[in-house]
Amino acid sequence: MSITSNTIETEELSDKLECIYHILNANSIAVVGASKNPNKWGYNILKNMICAGYKGKIYPINPREKIIQGLKVYKSILDVPGELDLMIIAVPPKFIPAIIKEGIQKKVAGVAIVTSGYREVGNIEREMELKKLIEGTKLHILGPNIQGLGTPSINLCAQPSPLITKKGPIAVISQSGSITSTITQWAQDENIGISGFVNLGNQIDLCESDFLRYFGEHIETKVISLYIEGAKNGKHFFNALREVCQKKPVVVLKPGRTTRGVETASSHTASIAGSDKVFNGALLQCGAIRAYGITDFYDYTKVFATQPLVEGNRVFIITSSGGVASLLIDYLVEKGVDIPELTPEQSERMQKAISIPGVRIANPCDFPAFQGSDYAPLIKLLAEIDSEEDLTDLFIFNVADSCPGLEHEILKFSKLTSKPIVVNYQGGGEDEKIGAEFLNKNGIPIYPVAERAANSVGALIKYSQFRKSRKILVWGFRGRPSI
Amino acid sequence: MSITSNTIETEELSDKLECIYHILNANSIAVVGASKNPNKWGYNILKNMICAGYKGKIYPINPREKIIQGLKVYKSILDVPGELDLMIIAVPPKFIPAIIKEGIQKKVAGVAIVTSGYREVGNIEREMELKKLIEGTKLHILGPNIQGLGTPSINLCAQPSPLITKKGPIAVISQSGSITSTITQWAQDENIGISGFVNLGNQIDLCESDFLRYFGEHIETKVISLYIEGAKNGKHFFNALREVCQKKPVVVLKPGRTTRGVETASSHTASIAGSDKVFNGALLQCGAIRAYGITDFYDYTKVFATQPLVEGNRVFIITSSGGVASLLIDYLVEKGVDIPELTPEQSERMQKAISIPGVRIANPCDFPAFQGSDYAPLIKLLAEIDSEEDLTDLFIFNVADSCPGLEHEILKFSKLTSKPIVVNYQGGGEDEKIGAEFLNKNGIPIYPVAERAANSVGALIKYSQFRKSRKILVWGFRGRPSI
Repeated sequence: MSITSNTIETEELSDKLECIYHILNANSIAVVGASKNPNKWGYNILKNMICAGYKGKIYPINPREKIIQGLKVYKSILDVPGELDLMIIAVPPKFIPAIIKEGIQKKVAGVAIVTSGYREVGNIEREMELKKLIEGTKLHILGPNIQGLGTPSINLCAQPSPLITKKGPIAVISQSGSITSTITQWAQDENIGISGFVNLGNQIDLCESDFLRYFGEHIETKVISLYIEGAKNGKHFFNALREVCQKKPVVVLKPGRTTRGVETASSHTASIAGSDKVFNGALLQCGAIRAYGITDFYDYTKVFATQPLVEGNRVFIITSSGGVASLLIDYLVEKGVDIPELTPEQSERMQKAISIPGVRIANPCDFPAFQGSDYAPLIKLLAEIDSEEDLTDLFIFNVADSCPGLEHEILKFSKLTSKPIVVNYQGGGEDEKIGAEFLNKNGIPIYPVAERAANSVGALIKYSQFRKSRKILVWGFRGRPSI
Repeated sequence: MSITSNTIETEELSDKLECIYHILNANSIAVVGASKNPNKWGYNILKNMICAGYKGKIYPINPREKIIQGLKVYKSILDVPGELDLMIIAVPPKFIPAIIKEGIQKKVAGVAIVTSGYREVGNIEREMELKKLIEGTKLHILGPNIQGLGTPSINLCAQPSPLITKKGPIAVISQSGSITSTITQWAQDENIGISGFVNLGNQIDLCESDFLRYFGEHIETKVISLYIEGAKNGKHFFNALREVCQKKPVVVLKPGRTTRGVETASSHTASIAGSDKVFNGALLQCGAIRAYGITDFYDYTKVFATQPLVEGNRVFIITSSGGVASLLIDYLVEKGVDIPELTPEQSERMQKAISIPGVRIANPCDFPAFQGSDYAPLIKLLAEIDSEEDLTDLFIFNVADSCPGLEHEILKFSKLTSKPIVVNYQGGGEDEKIGAEFLNKNGIPIYPVAERAANSVGALIKYSQFRKSRKILVWGFRGRPSI
């Protein structure tokens, strides 16, 4: 069989995915540059790894210490007994080439280089040197200039902060450690959780496309959140993105709509951001969902992480507030969402069953209530009408003011329908806080303002429509990837 | 002296402001329709009034009860001993005219009608009847179809939920009780607080212009948040708005950018929304700041509530994250904010003093840190350079990842400068929560994402520029208003 350039590419990719698998599912990790000094990365990363309760073996490496944070220290990775899946390196650049050579000798599967001081400050040669070292070997490098990575399902949190331990359906791939921190922390706070997170840094070897493909095949990952300042290789990136978007949603956040934004991103990871218009058009073609702020980035991710795709663009709204409903509807309509009127028959049927004064039977159904249980007859009827007459594609509960017990009614409703549900709950004080915690825990996305609920519904519908227009590929693995 | 139509208008307005003063500073309140049934407004409003610890006298009115929620009940307001400043009415519409007549007889200063079932459901005659009853009297009506009102400084919270007790600089005037709930609850949660809040309902008598003028003169009010579905009288509204915006910021939220949004608002308070473009242009002329979502509505209010106006449009950014700074800067630049480069001299001076590796001396100043105290030398130097060389008009701290103790450094910095400070803190887990509480308590606005910080800075600069371009009127009262 002749080896074409295509098969070479495939083999290389296969190698990379194998390496990523070992990095994110490492059984043993060396922290090179582990430190006793709380102002060092090597201290903070090690501390978080221990605090997260990592299930594999941790080997701190430091030639001048014997015990760090209660763990036995090794002078070099060559002294580590047994196999090493991953080396995390947090020592000055000048020491790194020698460590990489030891890694090759030790047959380490992957390296993550935390250290900065490379291309982002103009030192391109340093990167070239590292690249050259691994040429022709099976070893692959993540970074340099990264904050860390993690896999909550194996209690791996190899970053200085925050401590991310909640396992869930969201994969985060990011050129900014801080954006990873934000998204992973929020997903943890809201009890949704993370399937894996990785910071890309300068991408001298493993890059965004590789991780996209990896998480694209990863069964536990339901949605991928990608923060990118500039694609490492435009063609590879868009090929990977196109493929992955046919399998699962990818939410993309990218700065650089303004010149100053581009400059700042560029001094951060030395990325070259092309035209924002071109990038945007490419995302659209691929079927990726673009977010413009961190709020949207998280909100869209959250709706995809928790809700099924939606059949059409029709929304039925149950609201406790006329004012907030008006704001919600402005946003929904601007996103191209349809809020169909009830038919006279549907309206009559509801009027008959729900004869509470102050309730307006329509879409939106204005239903002010002091207690969640007041909603019981409404949701029973709505589920009935919908199962008989296909009333809508998605339900929005839009609640303002406190409504104790509401969360239980919404959960009951979710068991009566297979269609997506999105909740906005605002101005509800303590009752809202209790309700939000309960709904998040039960996989129903809850937003604190109308516009965030509406924008997320818009994203869900947009991606669902994209997927309906494509042949759907179903791929996935629980073990190692294979191409 | 001949009475011109102008003086009539002024007299009427003076009457109305006097009435509003009595409503919002009532020494005694009758709750007509006070109830033992937790599903009634008359139960929930009374409960909140008691729970808030209202400083005046509360008289529940109900012909069929003797004691409600521990308070002696009166059969009619005519049985109430002594004067009554305010009647809150929550009984069916058919009983209300007789109660209004009693109110006139009793010389009650103001009436708030919670009851709905008027113009918003097509019953215009009912409103006309009430209007006619008060013609030629000093009695004025707030509502009908409102959720309530409150003045935290006298522990008055006359609405069914939430319980708002935190006194502060924000006045909320709203056609939606739920939007009032949201904003007041957030201002309370963040320890900023409210100077007064009022729901407008159908505005058969007291309307948005009256309350704008009232809070415009009210010393304790630093910023007015106005949610409006349609102005009662366009000319009066814009006259009032123009006047008030010259004294203090007015943040306006209005739905109805889409036809469906207009319809929903219209069924809510029967407001007639004119062209959104015309409305927007008028706001701009008046100098009001328009918000498009509830998030902006609150965020803008918060920056005005806590920070002084700003001299120019230059911003200096201290960031711990290159990625989040890029996103922040995109939003700032889009809002017309200037992020000036440091002069070579300033840059050199900072380079000399701050020789920490990984710090990028520029604007934004990229300063990653594990501890808040790491910022100490930077903020000292920044305050020095700024006081000597007028470096900037506003400072933004843009922090991602946890940074324990950061809040104390920012507070120290705020004591070294008189210029506004805005903080974005995200991805910081528990440290962020501690920091946010501390900064809010100390009057430094903190936002949970870059875009919200940037948009708020934009609003602050926009209004400050408007004010600089006008002759500034300084009005205000601590006691009763006078015109």
